[in-house]
Order: sequence, then structure tokens, then C-alpha cells
Amino acid sequence: MKIVIIGAGFGGLNAAKSLTHFKQTSVTIIDRHNYHLFQPLLYQVATAGLNPADIASPIRSQFRKDKHIEVRLEEVIDIDRHQKVVRTLENSFSYDLLIVAAGAKNFYFGHHDWAAKAPGLKGLEDATEIRRRLFVAYENAEKAKTNAEKTMHLTFVLIGAGPTGVELAGSFAEIAHQVLRTDFRHINPDESKIILIEAGPRILPSFKPQLSQKAQKDLESMGVTVLTNTKVIQINDNQVILQDSSIEASTIAWSAGVTPSPLAKILKTELDNKGRVLINSDLSLKDDQSVLVLGDMAAFKDGETILPGVASVAIQQGRYIKKLIKADLEKKKRPSFKYFDKGQMATIGRKKAVVQVGNIAFSGTIAWFAWLFVHLYYLIGMRNRAMVFAQWAWSYLTFRRGARLITPPRSSEDN
Amino acid sequence: MKIVIIGAGFGGLNAAKSLTHFKQTSVTIIDRHNYHLFQPLLYQVATAGLNPADIASPIRSQFRKDKHIEVRLEEVIDIDRHQKVVRTLENSFSYDLLIVAAGAKNFYFGHHDWAAKAPGLKGLEDATEIRRRLFVAYENAEKAKTNAEKTMHLTFVLIGAGPTGVELAGSFAEIAHQVLRTDFRHINPDESKIILIEAGPRILPSFKPQLSQKAQKDLESMGVTVLTNTKVIQINDNQVILQDSSIEASTIAWSAGVTPSPLAKILKTELDNKGRVLINSDLSLKDDQSVLVLGDMAAFKDGETILPGVASVAIQQGRYIKKLIKADLEKKKRPSFKYFDKGQMATIGRKKAVVQVGNIAFSGTIAWFAWLFVHLYYLIGMRNRAMVFAQWAWSYLTFRRGARLITPPRSSEDN
Repeated sequence: MKIVIIGAGFGGLNAAKSLTHFKQTSVTIIDRHNYHLFQPLLYQVATAGLNPADIASPIRSQFRKDKHIEVRLEEVIDIDRHQKVVRTLENSFSYDLLIVAAGAKNFYFGHHDWAAKAPGLKGLEDATEIRRRLFVAYENAEKAKTNAEKTMHLTFVLIGAGPTGVELAGSFAEIAHQVLRTDFRHINPDESKIILIEAGPRILPSFKPQLSQKAQKDLESMGVTVLTNTKVIQINDNQVILQDSSIEASTIAWSAGVTPSPLAKILKTELDNKGRVLINSDLSLKDDQSVLVLGDMAAFKDGETILPGVASVAIQQGRYIKKLIKADLEKKKRPSFKYFDKGQMATIGRKKAVVQVGNIAFSGTIAWFAWLFVHLYYLIGMRNRAMVFAQWAWSYLTFRRGARLITPPRSSEDN
Repeated sequence: MKIVIIGAGFGGLNAAKSLTHFKQTSVTIIDRHNYHLFQPLLYQVATAGLNPADIASPIRSQFRKDKHIEVRLEEVIDIDRHQKVVRTLENSFSYDLLIVAAGAKNFYFGHHDWAAKAPGLKGLEDATEIRRRLFVAYENAEKAKTNAEKTMHLTFVLIGAGPTGVELAGSFAEIAHQVLRTDFRHINPDESKIILIEAGPRILPSFKPQLSQKAQKDLESMGVTVLTNTKVIQINDNQVILQDSSIEASTIAWSAGVTPSPLAKILKTELDNKGRVLINSDLSLKDDQSVLVLGDMAAFKDGETILPGVASVAIQQGRYIKKLIKADLEKKKRPSFKYFDKGQMATIGRKKAVVQVGNIAFSGTIAWFAWLFVHLYYLIGMRNRAMVFAQWAWSYLTFRRGARLITPPRSSEDN
């Protein structure tokens, strides 16, 4: 059986790992990058806490011992379900079973021009771009010739207050008030304004209201201005326009929305109103048993709700592939995918986090350590775990960040 | 006394550190990057052994406690010795004493177009570009459609066999024969051809002949083809043309020559035949006591020879600034700079290195550990030391490399 997997994010990678046991299959993993990226820690690369390589691991290294699995660094441009062929720029791959797990990209509600002004945080290039803007802003503030210019460079706007926005805001605050405190001569980084903007009534909307409240209090105690019920009307260079005011800021980051990979449309099947692929209980297309979609691209109905685009859904769907293939190979009926909700968590800063598991909700130091532990545990590879642990320990003890590099701007939009 | 330092490499950084004691001075360090780069380990970034941030440290962090020292992220475009002013794109800085330590850049003997085809190894962007080409070559070999194409992607040419070329060649060999051994399905990385080309009669020409011989034997035992007395006539895309043959290779790296920063010419003073600034025994210009030049830009006559462009010369010249300023402040005669030759070393691979100190020469395991120790010792900052040590230990134990990221190509030439 020829199996092609598109994408090596949480869904694709775990699907491929599920297939390591089935040596009678022949598996091809196709990805645009040579690494699997641990997205939950991407904000730490954007804020100089970790190196890009600490949260990325080469895909082919994961499967070095699995001779029936091959990895291709290629970009998929077409999927022909009729002929059962995936086409890349250079090659085509035929399949008996296709697993599409190409994830999501930043979504600006149709304002494509906002992407360059307010980068999102989906890939490593996004992260190093935000890091560059963050630290260049301080350098420019240091040499600013007017107060207005200085204020603009010392204002940081984060749009969207899900976990990523909250985590960025907390890190930006720590950088301003701790890391850089004594580094400059003409500015006081303590005067930085960090503004977190959320269109909805509260931050962390997927959490219980009490945790949203706690997180907002934590952020405010760290000097972050939280604006809820606030809609962004327009983003210009160095300017965010709100309903009845505007903010001049040279660093703007976006985490207010994502949209499925364009491959969803290429599948020519039924999509939901957010552009996600509607799938059966075995993750297959409504009209095609030989194509499975999982992770952020998929709209899986769990009772009345659709499963959210989070890592644990993608991971569990990837792991479910083991059961599915077993059934397929034994020519039995495929079992249904069942999601087990392990809860969710977000970190705000040193000893500040919120955790929610079922009906249990907690925050503070214990939540923070739980967050650290879970993220270390899920990180791929012992090397990355050891390196991340070492850098966290160092940052914890010194209040500093190890990767304060300003690298050149990205050459092209990769969204 | 207003002191301006251009460049925060080994020379400039150590000059600035010399000035931390003189609180009556006012010091401005100007650099194009926000970090000091530990160039001797740059080849390890190019070969995925270390992260960029491991060998770079933010300049302003070094001087956070020295209120009389400020750091500017700016690019110098002019030096007006008459008015005693340094001009950057955005500002101008007047000085009483100017220290120019802008280093060297890759030199292609007038063939500017070779730069894009065979990147050199002077900055972090060079290193990540070489890393990108190295790993993309294997990915392209894996999907090559003809044998000729495959062979081209699996051929790696390193031009110039000083320490950088030798260290790159050794690392390329380890990657081919150890790190990637089982990662591919359609190619055998073991078949890679790594070719080190040297125009002179032996590799490591600055070392004793017996060490050159030993290093060449070591490289050959690792599968590297060493071509001495071999001149490169032309470099095309994926092709190196020699006197009576040519090599098709998709990865070509250059370490055959450097030339002083263009600021040497801007000083409008006497240069030697290699474009370096001729200086007095106190590092000052022949015709200007208020301008000092040090490091790779300077031609310092030590007896009959000119000191080479190596880290230890720049470091010692930077440290000498302490004595010089003390004399200046006390209105005494400046002492002369004296170079103490601590010897030189190069590493070839695991437990393979050559060391030469005065008349003593040794190689092998002890030399390799000496190399590791000296490089850790000179690295700036405890964090970087700990991270580099941890990654070396990990690589030593696992025969793997932690930073195998393919990142986007650099946006522009930064040489």
C-alpha cells in the first residue's frame, strides 16, 4: 500500500510515526521544510528565549531506521483525486491512501497587505522576523531624534489574545522591564508600552472566564495594557487604527486568525464556513475513503462542536492512523476517531500561567511548572529537550535571554 | 575624552573592554550588527554543529554596567579626519580618539561574481547560507533524476586550505560519512565527494610542514580529496574550473582570501599592497595620532614581518588600548604594542587537530582537546560557553548535529 503524507506538523508527523510498524506499506512524507516545528514554543524564538533549532527537528532523522518511509523536501502544487496522484513542482507521487495535514496559515480577514505590517507567528521565519523587529525597535528608539519617534519605537502592539498573543505580550513585557533594563543610554526600556488588543470581550476566550480574568490581571501587573472589545480597523506602516483612536507603533504582531492551507481548496471537496475540510468519523473526505485530512485543515464534528485547531487534536488524529491502517490492512471496518480532551494551558510570564483540565482550573507557580513540564515532554528529541531545559534554567536564574540576534529581514512572504 | 570605536569584533570589543576602567572617557561603539561574533567557530554554524546565537553575544549586554560606554547599531559611511567626525547613514559622531577595527571581508581576487557562487565565511549570514546549500544539496541529490545530477549534488568543493577551509572540509566529511549515513533512501551520503583545493604547495601554510602533512593525512583518512598546487581559474554556477579539469558541484565554499574593510580606503592614509592600513608602533596612523587601527584592517610591522589577520593579534591589540589610554590621560608617551605569539591551532575532526606553540608541535587527541578547551575559554559569556559545551558533548556522544535547519536564502549580499 502506497501512502503519501503531506505535511510534517503535529498531525503528519504522528501519522508517519503510526506507520513505522507497518513495514508492508511504502510511505512518502512531503514537506516544504526539512524540519518538524514545535509551534507552541515559537513565541519563545520570537522573543529570543530559544534558538530556531531548539524547537525544530529534521524530519528525516525521525525515520532514519524506517526503510519503508521516505522524506521529500518538496512543495505540493496539486492533488488529483481522480488519478490518485500528488504533484509537486518537480515530481508526482501516486498513492493508495493520502493523508493531508498541511496545517493553517495566518489569516488577515482579506487584508493581505496587513501581513507585511503585522507578521503572524506560524513559521520560523515569522519568529525571527518578529524578533528582528522587536530588537531593532529598541535600537531605533536609542537613536531616535524626536520624542514622537522614540515613543513609536517603544510601543509594541499585539493583535489577538489567544494563547500566542498572551504569551507574546508577557514575553515582550519581560524583555522591556527585565532583560533590557540597563542596556541603553538614551532610552529607558521600562517606558515601553505593550498593548494587547482583543476584539472579543475577554482574553484567552477558549478558557474559563475566571482564567481569562486571572491572565489579564497577571499581564497588567507586568505592565501590559489589555484592550478587550477592541476592533482593529486598519493596519498601516507603524500604525494600528482602532474604532475611535489610533496607535503609532513600529512593532506590530498578529495572532488574531488563521485559515487552512490552500490545499483544502485543491481537494475539491466540501469545506465548512471557515474553509476547513469536512471529514467523516474516520477522517476521510465525505466523498473519498482514500483521502484523509487531519489537524488544523480539518473540521471534525465532535457532537455539536468542531474540534479546535490545536496541537493535541492533530497529535491524536495522527496517532489514530495506526488503528485505521491496521483495519485497512486487515480489510476490517475502520474505527471512528475519538478525541480525548486533555485540557489547555497558556503561560504569561515567570511563575505565571493558567491551566484548565476538565472542570479543574488553576494558575500561578504550579500552573507555570506544569506548563514547562508538558512542553518539555512533548518536544521532539532528547537533544532539544536538554537544550530547551538548559536555556530555561539559565533564563530563570539570570533574567536574561540567550538569542538576542538581529538577523536580516526575510526575503519573501512565506505565509 | 570622546572615543569612538568602529567595529565590535575581537579588536573593537577588547578595546572597549579596556576602556571600562576609564570612567572619565565617553565611549561610543558603532557596529552594523547588534552582536559580537566569535568567528573561529563560524564553521560549526555552517555545518549545523552550533546555533548562530551560541557564538554571538549582544554587544550592549557586555557594557550594561558601564554608563560611559554606549553602543550604536549603525553603518559607518564616512570618516572625516579633518573635522574628527565619523558619519553613519543617520548620524555623525565627533571624536578625540578614533579606533577603527572594522575587520576584513571575503576577497575573490577581483571576481565579484564568484561571491554568489561560492560564499565565504565571514558573518552569520554566510554561515547559514553555506549550511542551507550543504543540506539542500543532499535533498536535491535524493530527488535527482539523473546520475550526473546526483553526483553534482553530492560533490562539495572547498577553496582555500587555511584553518577555515580545513575545518569545513573535516566537518563536511563527518556529515557525509556519519551524521547523514542512514537518512536517505535514494542516495548513499557515503558516496559524497569532498574536495579541498589549495593553490599553494601544502594545506595550512602558516603551520609547520609536519603539521600540514599530518592534517592532510587526517583529512584523507576521513575521505576528503586534497588538491594542492591547484589554481581555480573560474567559478560558474555549480562548476569550478581548474587549470586542466573542471568539477561539477552544487556546493562551493570560499576561504581563499580576505581583504580589509572598505573603511581602510576611506581613512585616506598609507596602505600596504594588500590594502591594510600601515600603522605606527602605537597602532596610530602614520600621519594621525588620534586615529588607531587594529585587527585585520591593520598592517603592524613586527620586525620584518607583518602580523597576520588572526584573532589573537586583534585581541592583544584591543587589550593594549588600556595602556595607551592610560598614557594619553596621564599625558605620557604611549608605549609600543608588543605581540606575544601564543601559537596556532586547527581542528580537522573528532580527536584530530594540530597545535603549534613556539617550537612545539603536536596533533591527535590531545591537540583536539586543547583546541576544544581554548575555544570554550575564549568564547564570550557563560551562557554561550555552557551551550557550546553541552552541544559538543551531545555531538561527541551521538555522532549527530543539532542545528540541521534549512532556512531561506539570504536576501542580499552582506559582504
